[in-house]
Amino acid sequence: MPAAPIERFLRSLHAKYAGLHDGVVATYIPELAKADPDWFGICVATVDGFVYAVGDVDQEFTIQSISKPFVYGLVLDDRGTEYALSKVGVEPSGDAFNAISLHKSTGRPLNPMINAGAIATTGQVVADTPAERSRRILEMFAKYTGRPMRIDEAVYQSESLTGHRNRAIGHLLRNFDVLTGDPTADVDVYFQQCSLLVHCRDLALMAATLANQGINPMTGERAIRDEHVESVLSVMASCGMYDSSGGWIYNVGMPAKSGVAGGVLAVLPGQLGIGVFSPRLDEQGNSVRALEVCRELSRHWALHQFNPPYCPQTGRRLVYTGADRNSSRMRHPADYARLERLGRVIVVVELQGNLAFASIEPILRQLDGGSAIEARSLILDFHHVSGINDVAGRLLAELAGDLRRRGTNVSFTHSQRLPGLRDAVESHLGNDPLVAGLFRFTSTDAALEWCEDELLKGVEPDRFLRIQDLREFELTTDLTEEELDIVAALLVPRRFADGEYLMRRGEAAGSLFLIFKGIVAVQLGTGRNAEQRLASCSTGTMVGEMAFLDGKERSADVVAEGDVECGELAVRGFGRLEQSAPGLYAKLLRNIALALAAKLRKANRAALVLGAVRDQDGA
Amino acid sequence: MPAAPIERFLRSLHAKYAGLHDGVVATYIPELAKADPDWFGICVATVDGFVYAVGDVDQEFTIQSISKPFVYGLVLDDRGTEYALSKVGVEPSGDAFNAISLHKSTGRPLNPMINAGAIATTGQVVADTPAERSRRILEMFAKYTGRPMRIDEAVYQSESLTGHRNRAIGHLLRNFDVLTGDPTADVDVYFQQCSLLVHCRDLALMAATLANQGINPMTGERAIRDEHVESVLSVMASCGMYDSSGGWIYNVGMPAKSGVAGGVLAVLPGQLGIGVFSPRLDEQGNSVRALEVCRELSRHWALHQFNPPYCPQTGRRLVYTGADRNSSRMRHPADYARLERLGRVIVVVELQGNLAFASIEPILRQLDGGSAIEARSLILDFHHVSGINDVAGRLLAELAGDLRRRGTNVSFTHSQRLPGLRDAVESHLGNDPLVAGLFRFTSTDAALEWCEDELLKGVEPDRFLRIQDLREFELTTDLTEEELDIVAALLVPRRFADGEYLMRRGEAAGSLFLIFKGIVAVQLGTGRNAEQRLASCSTGTMVGEMAFLDGKERSADVVAEGDVECGELAVRGFGRLEQSAPGLYAKLLRNIALALAAKLRKANRAALVLGAVRDQDGA
Repeated sequence: MPAAPIERFLRSLHAKYAGLHDGVVATYIPELAKADPDWFGICVATVDGFVYAVGDVDQEFTIQSISKPFVYGLVLDDRGTEYALSKVGVEPSGDAFNAISLHKSTGRPLNPMINAGAIATTGQVVADTPAERSRRILEMFAKYTGRPMRIDEAVYQSESLTGHRNRAIGHLLRNFDVLTGDPTADVDVYFQQCSLLVHCRDLALMAATLANQGINPMTGERAIRDEHVESVLSVMASCGMYDSSGGWIYNVGMPAKSGVAGGVLAVLPGQLGIGVFSPRLDEQGNSVRALEVCRELSRHWALHQFNPPYCPQTGRRLVYTGADRNSSRMRHPADYARLERLGRVIVVVELQGNLAFASIEPILRQLDGGSAIEARSLILDFHHVSGINDVAGRLLAELAGDLRRRGTNVSFTHSQRLPGLRDAVESHLGNDPLVAGLFRFTSTDAALEWCEDELLKGVEPDRFLRIQDLREFELTTDLTEEELDIVAALLVPRRFADGEYLMRRGEAAGSLFLIFKGIVAVQLGTGRNAEQRLASCSTGTMVGEMAFLDGKERSADVVAEGDVECGELAVRGFGRLEQSAPGLYAKLLRNIALALAAKLRKANRAALVLGAVRDQDGA
Repeated sequence: MPAAPIERFLRSLHAKYAGLHDGVVATYIPELAKADPDWFGICVATVDGFVYAVGDVDQEFTIQSISKPFVYGLVLDDRGTEYALSKVGVEPSGDAFNAISLHKSTGRPLNPMINAGAIATTGQVVADTPAERSRRILEMFAKYTGRPMRIDEAVYQSESLTGHRNRAIGHLLRNFDVLTGDPTADVDVYFQQCSLLVHCRDLALMAATLANQGINPMTGERAIRDEHVESVLSVMASCGMYDSSGGWIYNVGMPAKSGVAGGVLAVLPGQLGIGVFSPRLDEQGNSVRALEVCRELSRHWALHQFNPPYCPQTGRRLVYTGADRNSSRMRHPADYARLERLGRVIVVVELQGNLAFASIEPILRQLDGGSAIEARSLILDFHHVSGINDVAGRLLAELAGDLRRRGTNVSFTHSQRLPGLRDAVESHLGNDPLVAGLFRFTSTDAALEWCEDELLKGVEPDRFLRIQDLREFELTTDLTEEELDIVAALLVPRRFADGEYLMRRGEAAGSLFLIFKGIVAVQLGTGRNAEQRLASCSTGTMVGEMAFLDGKERSADVVAEGDVECGELAVRGFGRLEQSAPGLYAKLLRNIALALAAKLRKANRAALVLGAVRDQDGA
């Protein structure tokens, strides 16, 4: 559904300029003179494929000169930039559209937007026959509009009957060998190209396709290679509006192209496309109403391309360290204390938005000079990145290489949606084993867990607990020796091999487990692929303690990762303590409550880290 | 500190083109010929004020034609656009820089970048005397460079001695009344303007100032009104590089200006400024090395303005409803259940980035048509918004007006850093009481709390509990009648007036409170202003329960908001139960643990909402 404020403004614009009757319909070919001078349509198409449409938006008319930049784009795709530039220049001529502005010695037309340049361009479309050339041009336009294209035969015949000046241009171009075949045939294809029928919606979608890096936002089909979009838009910007191109950029600030049938399209790269249609033209051959509409749209919505949004958009969303926030691994309180003390050497940077030179440069500057110097591990999280170009990927690969030389381990996480990142990194680093290392962890949580493990290993080698270490657990920390003996007697030693389940979701909850050695994962889903790892628990922690509180069934699966040794404490045994050792029973309950309170504090603290970084973002 | 990959590339560029010796130093005035042809500097300045500098970046040279767009900007500020356009046009001339391209009948120079247009422009700077005009021009440049400016007297004298062609232009302009005073004096000021000494760093900062909407990113000082920046950049884009402007846009894609002393500056709006200096010129009068450097910078870093980052940047960061996530108010479990059932009518949208037409339009479309239609309350959160322009503010004000007519209550939260939003809303809605309503809540949490209260009021009027309702509390929900009586006997009824403290941070924790009526706030900080409201608790909840677990001091203040009635349960009384009623004692401990587990589940669920929306973001 359209946004009401947008639609309302377009309707008011349409009403306002429907009253403008300046200008005259083109009459240089009789067929054009048959247009209803009051036809008036306005369309705005977004790069996500929504089209706002007001007025005569489905009335067909001939594309005329608006075809020129698109055929130029086809030639760029067919032949490459160098070849295209050898045939036609890119400088504004300062002359009218039908001037024969050829370079004195080479015969090269000044630009592809004047008729001479457009005819020269059409003649370069790769084809064996004129008919094939026409067909390829029609197919190309169909990709931009998303519908089959056809030619207005009457206009084509009319153009052909009266087009002597263009035929003269064709012969001159043949004389200079800019055209190399039968120039009459090339000019004929040009007449057909100009006689293509479009409507106002088409214009907006064609413009939006250029705004969207060459991909039609409605069909998802590519109409032109992305590296050629900037060239097409450049000739539109410098020469698109005949000899008022300078004033157009000054007033409207978008690359645009107009045609004598009354169409105008304008492109705001990366953002939207505009199509306007009204047949009355000014002296330069541009639609009078379309000019006014584009000018007012640009002003009212601040679309001038040289007037970008106020603040630069940073690519940095959030920075925190391993001291501020932990992975989902549950650890012994002593390990948490170590991470709080030492975790600053693990740095996590969440990136966001579109990563390109200007959004990535400040991040490189910060990481290269600042925090990352002392970091042993740097995790770059791409979860909130909506797009990344080659440049940003390459710069990040360079950063990773530099940091490795300083001994910092780098991970790129949550980058699966961004194949361009991996491509850019691979093309920069080649077969360097660093590449595999960068993409080793899919999630930040997994990377963070690994970094924490590495850090803790450095402080204390892999450890395990024995039954005489029972007091190490939060559950038993304040028990007397006698009470410890009672609990120890209730504990059933258990061993689990890698992949074995300690408990399964939905089962009755009959016990808790104290982990003496190894790691268990808490996960959801059945089958290996559907599993979602929620958290993990390592030596010195307990799992399944809700069994002692609510008697409900298990809410998740718990599975051993590697060999696990633990002690199982059954609810039944625990329950008997209520009578036999009520003091111990209450202590255990209190300790479970305290462990929950500690987890809650941790969760609140993690939320606060997010909150604190919000302010950093906003600053 | 500079980012190594950026600095490295600039050094490699400098090394590569230091070997390029094409072109010749300008000799049309003798002083310029004294330049060392090997001088070569490259600077890139970011819109946050960092300058990358390689080579001869502090070597001074005269600004020459690079002064033209800046003086044009000064005239726009002094006289307005309409007046400026009446004196000088904005169309490329297709001729060389010193051509006398005046409109045949009006004598209006074609554009401000050719000498005729520049002299006409200089003559419009508001001043009573030529000396004042010179001084104002120097002061203007000092704002762009952030340092005092001075003129190279030798070059100025040299220009003045040889500048007959420019004097001729001055007289012609006087003849047509484009200049209205003594043309010799105007041309003299023009010579001084061209003789201004700048270095390569200056050029980059001048460019970055234009990229930064007219504000010098190093000093924070405004050099030109923001609405005129686009006009200055437009004349640079269409006419800045003499008669190779079309090729420049095609190859480099940034508005730029060059001078015959060998300087070139280029602007990527919103992103960065480039300055390059090397005296050898090509036939068009542009520095040969500077052209190559800019072309390669543009290609290597994908800076072409018609080649924007791949994906459009949406202004929507996160959407959730009052059913997914609650405010920090602690409520009775029954109220939580109601919110889970009914909360979908409260919609929160977190916005992000730069809000302008293209980033706000998809949000309007979604809210106008979709979720907000059924919403009773819509909260727009601006915490992550880095900037907003008038257009986006106006469109949001329109949306709010439309939604109000449908009965939806709208709040704009966390918008204090964005005075432009309030300005835009006020200028659109005027004195409409809606404005005060929109900005009523500073935080999303406060707005959400209010929306929840309103929603719950609709279901059940303000309620309160009495001692016979004791079983309503989580603490006591499964007690027998006898146990309830024991607890009731231990409870001390307490009343607190608005602002009275139930507990203070740091005090010994001697009791918990069951809230029978009213609301208490949990907050940090001393004194009214320093307070940070962490959460609040309403009827049916308990507060201070950690006292029963860890015996530590209070971690926050708790204060009554309005009249509060509650029951206080002392730790001492609770402790005696361990002996007298051990079953009850264990039940209370278990219930505290269960309440903590419920809070933990809520915290984890809120984190999951964030996680889920991450995926939505990424999609």
